[in-house]
Amino acid sequence: MSAGVFSRIASSVVRSGKHKPKGLFDFSKQLVVCRVCSAAFHGNIAGVSDPKQTSFVGHNFLTLRDFNKHDIEQLLWTAADLKERIKNNGEVYQPLIGKAAALIFEKRSTRTRMSSETGFAALGGHPAFLTQNDIHLGVNESLSDTAKVLSGFVDIILARVYRHDDLITLTQQASVPIVNGLSEIYHPLQSLADMLTLQEHYGSLSGLTLAWVGDGNNIIHSIMMAAPRLGINLKIATPKGYEIFPEVMADTVKFAKEANTDIFVTNDPLEACQNANIVVTDTWISMGQEEEKAERLKAFKGYQVTKKMTDVMDKDWTFLHCLPRKPEEVDDEVFYSKNSLIWPEAENRKWTVMAVLLSLLTDHVHKTSKPIF
Amino acid sequence: MSAGVFSRIASSVVRSGKHKPKGLFDFSKQLVVCRVCSAAFHGNIAGVSDPKQTSFVGHNFLTLRDFNKHDIEQLLWTAADLKERIKNNGEVYQPLIGKAAALIFEKRSTRTRMSSETGFAALGGHPAFLTQNDIHLGVNESLSDTAKVLSGFVDIILARVYRHDDLITLTQQASVPIVNGLSEIYHPLQSLADMLTLQEHYGSLSGLTLAWVGDGNNIIHSIMMAAPRLGINLKIATPKGYEIFPEVMADTVKFAKEANTDIFVTNDPLEACQNANIVVTDTWISMGQEEEKAERLKAFKGYQVTKKMTDVMDKDWTFLHCLPRKPEEVDDEVFYSKNSLIWPEAENRKWTVMAVLLSLLTDHVHKTSKPIF
Amino acid sequence: MSAGVFSRIASSVVRSGKHKPKGLFDFSKQLVVCRVCSAAFHGNIAGVSDPKQTSFVGHNFLTLRDFNKHDIEQLLWTAADLKERIKNNGEVYQPLIGKAAALIFEKRSTRTRMSSETGFAALGGHPAFLTQNDIHLGVNESLSDTAKVLSGFVDIILARVYRHDDLITLTQQASVPIVNGLSEIYHPLQSLADMLTLQEHYGSLSGLTLAWVGDGNNIIHSIMMAAPRLGINLKIATPKGYEIFPEVMADTVKFAKEANTDIFVTNDPLEACQNANIVVTDTWISMGQEEEKAERLKAFKGYQVTKKMTDVMDKDWTFLHCLPRKPEEVDDEVFYSKNSLIWPEAENRKWTVMAVLLSLLTDHVHKTSKPIF
Repeated sequence: MSAGVFSRIASSVVRSGKHKPKGLFDFSKQLVVCRVCSAAFHGNIAGVSDPKQTSFVGHNFLTLRDFNKHDIEQLLWTAADLKERIKNNGEVYQPLIGKAAALIFEKRSTRTRMSSETGFAALGGHPAFLTQNDIHLGVNESLSDTAKVLSGFVDIILARVYRHDDLITLTQQASVPIVNGLSEIYHPLQSLADMLTLQEHYGSLSGLTLAWVGDGNNIIHSIMMAAPRLGINLKIATPKGYEIFPEVMADTVKFAKEANTDIFVTNDPLEACQNANIVVTDTWISMGQEEEKAERLKAFKGYQVTKKMTDVMDKDWTFLHCLPRKPEEVDDEVFYSKNSLIWPEAENRKWTVMAVLLSLLTDHVHKTSKPIF
Repeated sequence: MSAGVFSRIASSVVRSGKHKPKGLFDFSKQLVVCRVCSAAFHGNIAGVSDPKQTSFVGHNFLTLRDFNKHDIEQLLWTAADLKERIKNNGEVYQPLIGKAAALIFEKRSTRTRMSSETGFAALGGHPAFLTQNDIHLGVNESLSDTAKVLSGFVDIILARVYRHDDLITLTQQASVPIVNGLSEIYHPLQSLADMLTLQEHYGSLSGLTLAWVGDGNNIIHSIMMAAPRLGINLKIATPKGYEIFPEVMADTVKFAKEANTDIFVTNDPLEACQNANIVVTDTWISMGQEEEKAERLKAFKGYQVTKKMTDVMDKDWTFLHCLPRKPEEVDDEVFYSKNSLIWPEAENRKWTVMAVLLSLLTDHVHKTSKPIF
Repeated sequence: MSAGVFSRIASSVVRSGKHKPKGLFDFSKQLVVCRVCSAAFHGNIAGVSDPKQTSFVGHNFLTLRDFNKHDIEQLLWTAADLKERIKNNGEVYQPLIGKAAALIFEKRSTRTRMSSETGFAALGGHPAFLTQNDIHLGVNESLSDTAKVLSGFVDIILARVYRHDDLITLTQQASVPIVNGLSEIYHPLQSLADMLTLQEHYGSLSGLTLAWVGDGNNIIHSIMMAAPRLGINLKIATPKGYEIFPEVMADTVKFAKEANTDIFVTNDPLEACQNANIVVTDTWISMGQEEEKAERLKAFKGYQVTKKMTDVMDKDWTFLHCLPRKPEEVDDEVFYSKNSLIWPEAENRKWTVMAVLLSLLTDHVHKTSKPIF
């Protein structure tokens, strides 16, 4: 919306005489609020308002388990809206001016750090990047004390941790929203990016079949919290001894039943890929697990994603990988093929984390139509 | 100027019908511009101007010793003003847009780093956080050369150093203001936060009695530069061999005499706490002193702040601690009690460092009334 | 509103004599406000448009070899324009709001890091500073993959690398501009700062003679790509075994021939300094070369820049050094003399890198006249 359009709305509200403007002529938020009755006038004339919009302000974002189908779709819509307006239309949209985020990384990160840092800044906020050298969670002072102190300095905390329980402690002690930037159980920011990427590629999600070939790890755990509820069937291949966590599987089965989607589990990668639309994997040798490498190479024999697997998939097959990639889990032919969605998937980490951080801090007004899911 | 005042001006411009507001309702610049005739209406009518306001622009901030009672009150007023407007009223106030700060940390920090980084950013500036890995003061090049070079890139330098003398060198060689982010002698940013916290809790400072139970260190040194001049009596308990620096004591005695406040020194913590309003301590085993731990544990026997001490204090006693805390100097019962002001104290690190950085760069116009001190 | 329109209005306001410009030539808001009557004049400009202006948008900046005389002058003009407007006139000019840069440092840096970080932020963008701890180029994932991923998060990448070839790989794989923040062959950002500093000091560059006394390294290599084409004669003294790279010399000879400037090469520092206007050196013992120190001290005997050398130079001699400095290559008398331009040279690192980053992202409109070169 142009300055002129906003101005006209602001003026008409004031001129109407029915409302007294609150002094909150916030152009960036395109909002005029009446001082007396608190009525809010959004300058967004053409905003695609959703009567069923859920407010996530003040919520935590530890796992998509806590968000229902409508919630997840709303977050993806927000991501798509930001991408269209900022990237494609060149809109400068900075509703988070004056706000600060603590981005805490116990483990090294390129994608999560850069997507959240540049994304939060693009929305006008200040991201403070903290490594273990800067802030040693639970070492110099208790995690609980740190949570309370940071709550006085920042508006939101994103943390990549070794122990999911530390995130839970943060939510209990901090007075600001906590965002999971990766734990040993879940990686919900990655799943949102995956869902957005698939929505963009296929036009909708319902009815797709996604095959997982790899470890029963945080990546597939988070896909399991999102995909079945969005209408995606899952075919999961994990080697013996590397299965999905039972609690995660129990939740998934429940979600799939409610959404009438299928869950299929096997130890055979080829069986999982049969007729699937999407194949997803991750490195089996994560950071900090190098010592187990030999053992894992043996267990994951046959788990490298190659043309042999994609040949049994749907014709319009695609490939996802959270990166960084090691050649053991996927060969160059698949990884760099034209069917591979890895680069848009990586970029979508930015638009989806922006949607999450923004939604936990303010109620976003969409300007574009809701995508079809 | 309050949001209301600005709003009234904005409204009257619109209502007058003579001018059409251009959509440039820029509260941070307090400006409304007519779209047709381009007349500009500056909102700034009712700032609470102080005829006695001191300009600190271009000054250094190494110790509160260099600031008199009026100066310290003015800095605290600025902090309170920023807190009220930005935190409580949601004002976006960014007078430091385009400015940069170098935040240099020879020693690790959570509070000083996060408060100054997020505070400087909240005011619109860009904070550049520099650790010893980034800039090794006096190693790769002389401190003097570094000071001159940084002066060409940033508008202000905050440094946490091992040697107070390095700060003095910086002030001599840099052409921009230098802020002490902690030295072995003083920690003035902490004292400002303490004073603001006490003012908020007690409504005023004059007549209070503050007990120190601990090391004769930088924390109490800085409290001694501020408290007596603001009307606070001091009762200081330090173990033998860990006394206040003699020069600091000499200054304090002089300040107290001028302000007609009392200074009482003892080796007995209970005597210091007797009838005091506030008890303050700090860890005895600072970063880099771990090797002395055994020796110190012996010397500080009886110095743990517990209910035994607070029982002899004033009924409305409070507890302060700069954090991080170790259990040796204060037990959980006091540290986490409802009388403990540690969390607001930590948060006030942000509002006070903002006041300091802002005041050294520009003459701040207060919009709220001066607090009672 | 175009820059041209705003400039015209600003000029006409000033020229009319009826209004006194408030000093608030706010290009980003395109606003001029009269100090007396508060009339506001919007509208943008005539800037000093250059019909021959080259667009560098989307280009890389690996070496000045790729830029011709006109290009280099345009970049220096942009730097001078930004310095005049932002530093001298206090203009807030933030055309890069919403943009992000990745600043990757494989080697430690003070000047390049601080100049690019604060410069990019001053223009409104968000700089993300990445050390080897944050992003280990080519280690955790291939350089090629990293380039593609970062392209989804940032608008431009500046990298300080050990291998110039890595920069070339980045340009091939990334979809955003790549800026050389120092390689083993070139340091073009330093040369731009040097040229700006000399232009400011001497009023123009054509006809000056610059003597290099030192290693055949990246610093002189980059001077050789710029100086001859700007009309500066070169006299280069390097010890045997530390000569200029042959390919660089071949290019330089060609550029000098085209521009009708002289290139003189010798092993005798005094001969190089004879009648020169400027003497430039750099440390012979760069980071990572400490082990060769003894050998180099021997080879560079007689290469310390002292009064003995400046005595044979032009009367208005000046000294440049990219810093940090070691005493081996220049003594205090020259380094700290009034003829030494090292501090403005360091500061100009900021204005020149700003010009480069800005020019690769958007077509800058100059508001000040082109300097004489």
